Amino acid sequence: MNKEATMSDKPLPDIQAGLDDRGIAIDRVGVSDLEYPIHVMDRDGNPIPVSAKVSMSVHLPHHFKGTHMSRFLEVLAKHEGEVTMRTLPDILHDLKDRLDAQSTQIEVGFNYFVTREAPVTGMPAKVRCHCTFIGESNGAEDEFTLRVETPVTTLCPCSKEISEYGAHNQRGYVTIDVKPVKDDKGSWEMVLIEDLVEVAERSGSAPIYSLLKREDEKHVTEQAYDNPVFVEDVVRNAAIILREDSRVASFSVKAVNHESIHDHNAFAVVIQEG
Amino acid sequence: MNKEATMSDKPLPDIQAGLDDRGIAIDRVGVSDLEYPIHVMDRDGNPIPVSAKVSMSVHLPHHFKGTHMSRFLEVLAKHEGEVTMRTLPDILHDLKDRLDAQSTQIEVGFNYFVTREAPVTGMPAKVRCHCTFIGESNGAEDEFTLRVETPVTTLCPCSKEISEYGAHNQRGYVTIDVKPVKDDKGSWEMVLIEDLVEVAERSGSAPIYSLLKREDEKHVTEQAYDNPVFVEDVVRNAAIILREDSRVASFSVKAVNHESIHDHNAFAVVIQEG
Amino acid sequence: MNKEATMSDKPLPDIQAGLDDRGIAIDRVGVSDLEYPIHVMDRDGNPIPVSAKVSMSVHLPHHFKGTHMSRFLEVLAKHEGEVTMRTLPDILHDLKDRLDAQSTQIEVGFNYFVTREAPVTGMPAKVRCHCTFIGESNGAEDEFTLRVETPVTTLCPCSKEISEYGAHNQRGYVTIDVKPVKDDKGSWEMVLIEDLVEVAERSGSAPIYSLLKREDEKHVTEQAYDNPVFVEDVVRNAAIILREDSRVASFSVKAVNHESIHDHNAFAVVIQEG
Amino acid sequence: MNKEATMSDKPLPDIQAGLDDRGIAIDRVGVSDLEYPIHVMDRDGNPIPVSAKVSMSVHLPHHFKGTHMSRFLEVLAKHEGEVTMRTLPDILHDLKDRLDAQSTQIEVGFNYFVTREAPVTGMPAKVRCHCTFIGESNGAEDEFTLRVETPVTTLCPCSKEISEYGAHNQRGYVTIDVKPVKDDKGSWEMVLIEDLVEVAERSGSAPIYSLLKREDEKHVTEQAYDNPVFVEDVVRNAAIILREDSRVASFSVKAVNHESIHDHNAFAVVIQEG
Repeated sequence: MNKEATMSDKPLPDIQAGLDDRGIAIDRVGVSDLEYPIHVMDRDGNPIPVSAKVSMSVHLPHHFKGTHMSRFLEVLAKHEGEVTMRTLPDILHDLKDRLDAQSTQIEVGFNYFVTREAPVTGMPAKVRCHCTFIGESNGAEDEFTLRVETPVTTLCPCSKEISEYGAHNQRGYVTIDVKPVKDDKGSWEMVLIEDLVEVAERSGSAPIYSLLKREDEKHVTEQAYDNPVFVEDVVRNAAIILREDSRVASFSVKAVNHESIHDHNAFAVVIQEG
Repeated sequence: MNKEATMSDKPLPDIQAGLDDRGIAIDRVGVSDLEYPIHVMDRDGNPIPVSAKVSMSVHLPHHFKGTHMSRFLEVLAKHEGEVTMRTLPDILHDLKDRLDAQSTQIEVGFNYFVTREAPVTGMPAKVRCHCTFIGESNGAEDEFTLRVETPVTTLCPCSKEISEYGAHNQRGYVTIDVKPVKDDKGSWEMVLIEDLVEVAERSGSAPIYSLLKREDEKHVTEQAYDNPVFVEDVVRNAAIILREDSRVASFSVKAVNHESIHDHNAFAVVIQEG
Repeated sequence: MNKEATMSDKPLPDIQAGLDDRGIAIDRVGVSDLEYPIHVMDRDGNPIPVSAKVSMSVHLPHHFKGTHMSRFLEVLAKHEGEVTMRTLPDILHDLKDRLDAQSTQIEVGFNYFVTREAPVTGMPAKVRCHCTFIGESNGAEDEFTLRVETPVTTLCPCSKEISEYGAHNQRGYVTIDVKPVKDDKGSWEMVLIEDLVEVAERSGSAPIYSLLKREDEKHVTEQAYDNPVFVEDVVRNAAIILREDSRVASFSVKAVNHESIHDHNAFAVVIQEG
Repeated sequence: MNKEATMSDKPLPDIQAGLDDRGIAIDRVGVSDLEYPIHVMDRDGNPIPVSAKVSMSVHLPHHFKGTHMSRFLEVLAKHEGEVTMRTLPDILHDLKDRLDAQSTQIEVGFNYFVTREAPVTGMPAKVRCHCTFIGESNGAEDEFTLRVETPVTTLCPCSKEISEYGAHNQRGYVTIDVKPVKDDKGSWEMVLIEDLVEVAERSGSAPIYSLLKREDEKHVTEQAYDNPVFVEDVVRNAAIILREDSRVASFSVKAVNHESIHDHNAFAVVIQEG
């Protein structure tokens, strides 16, 4: 005969749905490191296909033996057309519903490109930032976090001050996590990826570009020298901007400097709870 | 007055264009680890935007002090609309021309997704393979290599044979490099990414899927058990297919097993020069 | 004259010690990704040199401009002879003292090797686990976490049950975090790295070995087939052992399966607060 | 009775030793990504335990079905006391002998630490370099390559020249591969890891230190400003030193700059065949 007939005659056992008597609930169970194509929105609302790294998980009550891993993929496949701040509540709802779970989490990370014009010649090129959408639903409450990592240049204030000439500088990465407030209708206020890139760039010594001609290189070299910052300054500069932003319920900022005079990094973190 | 005026009055010195008297030519100089958005073609000729990791380099004669790094970005920005087997010769030509170089190389790596229907239920989902386009131009001759890394399942023939039941199996990755032959007009014969994914999948114990329901899981479990392969078998199976393919001038195959009974990998390589 | 003379005549300014008026305290500031040689103790109390990846940080009050990064290295250099559960309180104290901080954290990760005899032939070889010592001091209270990641084999219960023969299995990694209780004298109860490796190995389908002859391979293949576990089972099995251990104040367990039938991972987490 | 009795009564089949009729020789087959504890020698001949990443492989003739992977581990376990330039020929010989192979390769990578005294205060701390021993035996001939990757600071000559103040600088990594010549007795001339670290440090703008006090930071900031280098200069500077070294039969040098004004790297490579 054929497989389908066999299947309908005698359904395969569902081990995961069995009972467990060890009395231990699982805080999170799911899939991770899944590379999957999804669509995000650019600032003009146009869909952009990206290759995302995805993790999805649920809480599992103590009496169930296992979760049904394939259902995570079914929900993702259903929504692959769009993962955005607007659609994330639906995805979280579907995950809870399809997996019969009281809480669920999803994390979607991807490269996103912003256009930067070189500061003097105006030549355009793309700069990559790395974004992560983090959604979580515990009972009735949904939470959304937008995470954006932006490369910047930082120049050391101490090195500049104590040296007769020059100052060590380096590539740094600023990671900003923002949880937006909700408006009257219960939707999250829109915070754009570009908004957080801008906060990061304003907090370092100079922005990073992919394409710089000599005139541009002179400009950013002098700009960085004129704006020395420690990692401590970077996170404070960003925090000052973010705490004034009425769309932001809570945030954290991490700055990491790939020190040019060391083979290790310097870092600083500021966390502001809502 | 303003920068532009200053610039036109007195051009900035061009250090890189200076002479070098150390008598040492540089085999390769350029940029690497550049994340950049480009377009590739799917099998139907539709452009797909991908986030690529790019490196580009040139040969530098002994008498020049340096190359002009920003020009790599200018050439890439110019061609960002499309990097394919068809456009690569133009890119190589532009790199040589713009950087005044006798030889040049470009490498563009990106995730590419193929749709796989689960073997019994037919449910569709995407599977990621990792592709790299490698172009090189030395003097008059252009070379192109298509590299595709495909995940597969492998089941150990030894473990199956010696054990009373069961057999260890694991995720493996098959990396195939193909240099295509040229047709009468000097164009490379078209080898699709999907073609190399298929070669890899036919060479392992079973394909990898992102979404498998229980009926499908039963199918692939039994399929792998029925088709045990060592890494040696994987590379030989692929080699047999590739050496019969008239589009292929030369190739190499590497198989890596993430052994489930060890914390290290097993690997095998076959190289067939043209 | 010489530098030293200049230095004593006119001390260099201390930018970091300056005041900051932005009113933002820094939750953590320090160094990370520092590769450094340290000594740990094996189970018999013998010092073992390891290459560790180290991060160290402190809290910085809002009124200080910056911390003194070089002092982290001075403290580490002073203690490089030994980083263990016994010496960690001294290191934490020195960090707080030297950096004039109210709280401090240190994290030290390294490869650690345990000897495993193959189950039938008894041939010995080393298996790597990855360990992390995490120390934190907030005001009067010190906290210590021992983290050990152990590779194991896992075989899928569902695949075994529904298939007529075979069962997919894979390499998995079990990460156990344990905070030990303190004894009457305020010292942490000794929990050995080897203890947590054993918990992990007992929770999977079979241990991982580096060296297996055919007789051994037959043994572990059948052992895994006889002990199928989901990631949910792995974390529950480990939790049951750990919650009975009187030395353990609190713990978490994470299991990650590098699924052999997928190109993504399955994972589960159980957290038990003290 | 017991397993051993059973084993001697009826030996397990040896699948790998079977014949293969596909007519395809395997260029390389073996194990990789094996983390294993070994001993290397420091400059004074003292053994230093390190955690190494190891790969080992052999050529497999077309008529054999597979190699015996466990034998790689047996040879490594036998020699774990020491992997050095002096013992590598024995290891290569044992691999060929035990695996009945005409050619074999081994690659052993590990972190190695050199002590650096800060340039003004003289405070000592360790700096990590990454070393790889590469041994290869094809027929009668053995080859040995010592690879050392050293972090350095580089300061851009163009940025310095065109800017009114400041100059962008960054962390860079210099990787030197050296094949030593053989002396009258057929032993490789001794090239120390420290020798190649020194070549790298002399080729950049300034060395990297782990611990720098303010006086030291002033020194290295000014030192880098006084010694600007492109990646092209780094590889040429190193090449000039290496080609004058009578112990060196052939070499390659790669320099990679983690550009502080870009989110990508600049690199250069010089290869000098023997």
